[in-house]
Amino acid sequence: MSAWLLPDHIADVLPAEARHLEDLRRCLLETARRYGYELVMPPLIEHLDSLLTGTGEALELQTFKLVDQLSGRTLGLRADTTPQVARIDAHLLNRAGVTRLCYCAPVVHTRATATSGSRELLQFGAEIYGHAGLEADLEVLELALDALRAAGVRRLSVDLGDVRVVDAVLHGCAVAPPVLSRLHAALAAKDEATLAELAAGLPPLVRARLLALPRLYGGPEVLAAAAAQLGDAPGLEQALGDLRRLANQLTQRDPDVAVTFDLADLRGYAYYTGVRYAILSADSGQGEEIARGGRYDEVGAVFGRRRPAAGFSLDLRQLVRGLPAPALRPAIRAPWRHDPALRAAIARLRAQGETVVCVLPGHEHEVDEFACDRELIEHQGEWVVAPRPRAA
Amino acid sequence: MSAWLLPDHIADVLPAEARHLEDLRRCLLETARRYGYELVMPPLIEHLDSLLTGTGEALELQTFKLVDQLSGRTLGLRADTTPQVARIDAHLLNRAGVTRLCYCAPVVHTRATATSGSRELLQFGAEIYGHAGLEADLEVLELALDALRAAGVRRLSVDLGDVRVVDAVLHGCAVAPPVLSRLHAALAAKDEATLAELAAGLPPLVRARLLALPRLYGGPEVLAAAAAQLGDAPGLEQALGDLRRLANQLTQRDPDVAVTFDLADLRGYAYYTGVRYAILSADSGQGEEIARGGRYDEVGAVFGRRRPAAGFSLDLRQLVRGLPAPALRPAIRAPWRHDPALRAAIARLRAQGETVVCVLPGHEHEVDEFACDRELIEHQGEWVVAPRPRAA
Repeated sequence: MSAWLLPDHIADVLPAEARHLEDLRRCLLETARRYGYELVMPPLIEHLDSLLTGTGEALELQTFKLVDQLSGRTLGLRADTTPQVARIDAHLLNRAGVTRLCYCAPVVHTRATATSGSRELLQFGAEIYGHAGLEADLEVLELALDALRAAGVRRLSVDLGDVRVVDAVLHGCAVAPPVLSRLHAALAAKDEATLAELAAGLPPLVRARLLALPRLYGGPEVLAAAAAQLGDAPGLEQALGDLRRLANQLTQRDPDVAVTFDLADLRGYAYYTGVRYAILSADSGQGEEIARGGRYDEVGAVFGRRRPAAGFSLDLRQLVRGLPAPALRPAIRAPWRHDPALRAAIARLRAQGETVVCVLPGHEHEVDEFACDRELIEHQGEWVVAPRPRAA
Repeated sequence: MSAWLLPDHIADVLPAEARHLEDLRRCLLETARRYGYELVMPPLIEHLDSLLTGTGEALELQTFKLVDQLSGRTLGLRADTTPQVARIDAHLLNRAGVTRLCYCAPVVHTRATATSGSRELLQFGAEIYGHAGLEADLEVLELALDALRAAGVRRLSVDLGDVRVVDAVLHGCAVAPPVLSRLHAALAAKDEATLAELAAGLPPLVRARLLALPRLYGGPEVLAAAAAQLGDAPGLEQALGDLRRLANQLTQRDPDVAVTFDLADLRGYAYYTGVRYAILSADSGQGEEIARGGRYDEVGAVFGRRRPAAGFSLDLRQLVRGLPAPALRPAIRAPWRHDPALRAAIARLRAQGETVVCVLPGHEHEVDEFACDRELIEHQGEWVVAPRPRAA
């Protein structure tokens, strides 16, 4: 008798939190709509090949596999929505110009991630296709910040990085993919000991630069320090210049947002190709990122359409935990009777947006699960709303 | 190169339909909220045992299986939400009184069902626990009808049946479960030939009554005909009486809804235990049901809490196909510039709920995917909204 036990890191969302989550969902999607981002809903399951093409090993390990009885092929339960949205941009919409898309739906992971603590996430994200310039990164980042503010998140900061910095440092070195993954992980964790070990076989200059990366985080001074310490690594100038421009423009438009840099940060999926960022709030847990985004120009290539792409995503289930629960909307209690006048009064109140709970016969003395601060009573032949005395 | 191909009966929902679906979702959940139904969000995956306990073979066949790497146990991707909501009522809320819950989230089937034509459904439903009387059936049925009307469905009808009618007819006969499934299927399909074959070994009186069932559908006269033709089958009187009372009360409260009866209808899941119904619209496809519900008093038993339950569910993806698409909300085009006055004008319009699409540099002459009927222009040093000439 344990049919009610859930698997580890899987949980129900109960009424108070579910309503809050639904409100946040509307609020985020509404912000995206106002920015001109069109909603899409890719399927929960797809051929595994399509879900994982070009997305790297991390996503493959996070994806549940299942068998399609109709075709015998292996399907995946999506662990991330971005590759699906890239497919939609490439094949279904196939527009010549800029395309702005957003989504809000569950993704499932085989193992809980550190930030969510859960295996089921409610992923909200927005993506812009077809523009290679920094304007696209800036727009999508502003949308993310506005959406979070509309959801009630305060004291926001953006931590900027760029995949191209590490690529520039490693330029010309043949590093085997498994070693590269471990290098990236050590950089993200600022684990200098492991980094030194992994870099042991690399040329001295590359090694020195790699070991400098974990200390290159902080304010705008980081960019100058990087230019000095990482020297003439090819492509570096472009990456640092983009970071500087993006930070300047963001600060001009949104002076309340703190901008920091972290040139070793490589967390997230393997499909990032340029600028990348984490959004944090000083109000939430220590250094806990609430959204993550960047540029992933290659993501549509496997669907036959290599075009510029930038976007962000966040987990609503994580977001809701960091926000104060909204006050319960008070409801009205009504008796259960076959009285057309009562039915009409109830219908009228509901049409006005009120919650009217009918007390079914025999349940008059049960505990009131709702905050019913008023009740419908018959007064001189009319049904009227009266304040309800609070329970002692 | 077919990474963009989706599995059979799996589809993306593209912008116009996705926005409509999202609007419908809000509209249905809002109606449920006004009736006092609290939102819950059970997980997409659970231990297979928990998902399938007592729900019958049909649901088992429809459930995708996957392996939990953390425990080695078999998980199921939910194919139906009701068993999960029963678990929540039984264990997480565990309230003494009446509990009203609703949900709106995807379910996935291994094979496409006839009504949806798809393997991924967006299931909306509402359930009431803790009241055995017909008032609960009536309330949840009225909620379903109101929600559908709010979504824009017209010319609604309710087709009533009751599992107990067939149970009464078969009372005292030992029918093996596989034969019983086929009997139920033949009854639901009104396939008299198969029915006669399957009933061949049953006592003559039972056989005659079984063969009478497929013709017992139509208006209120069906109940009198059933009483005459099915005679003294134990439990029958109660079932027919409940159907009559429910139909009368529904007609009194909601005279616009046509009520019909179908005593052979046994479609849906095996957990139904009493009154059951399909809701149809004369505007949608021939005899295509858009919602289905009834009573399932046993559904919480496996979670240690056998209490009365009634509810309904529907598939929003099916619903949206039967409704006319809403008009595209017109948007405003804005140029891209680092001008604080322009940024402020855009923010103001968005705060008013307008969609403002910024044209990124170099994309000024692209086809406009949005219906932009206005644009932000600079006029005498101010940013103003001006009507936009239509494209020729």
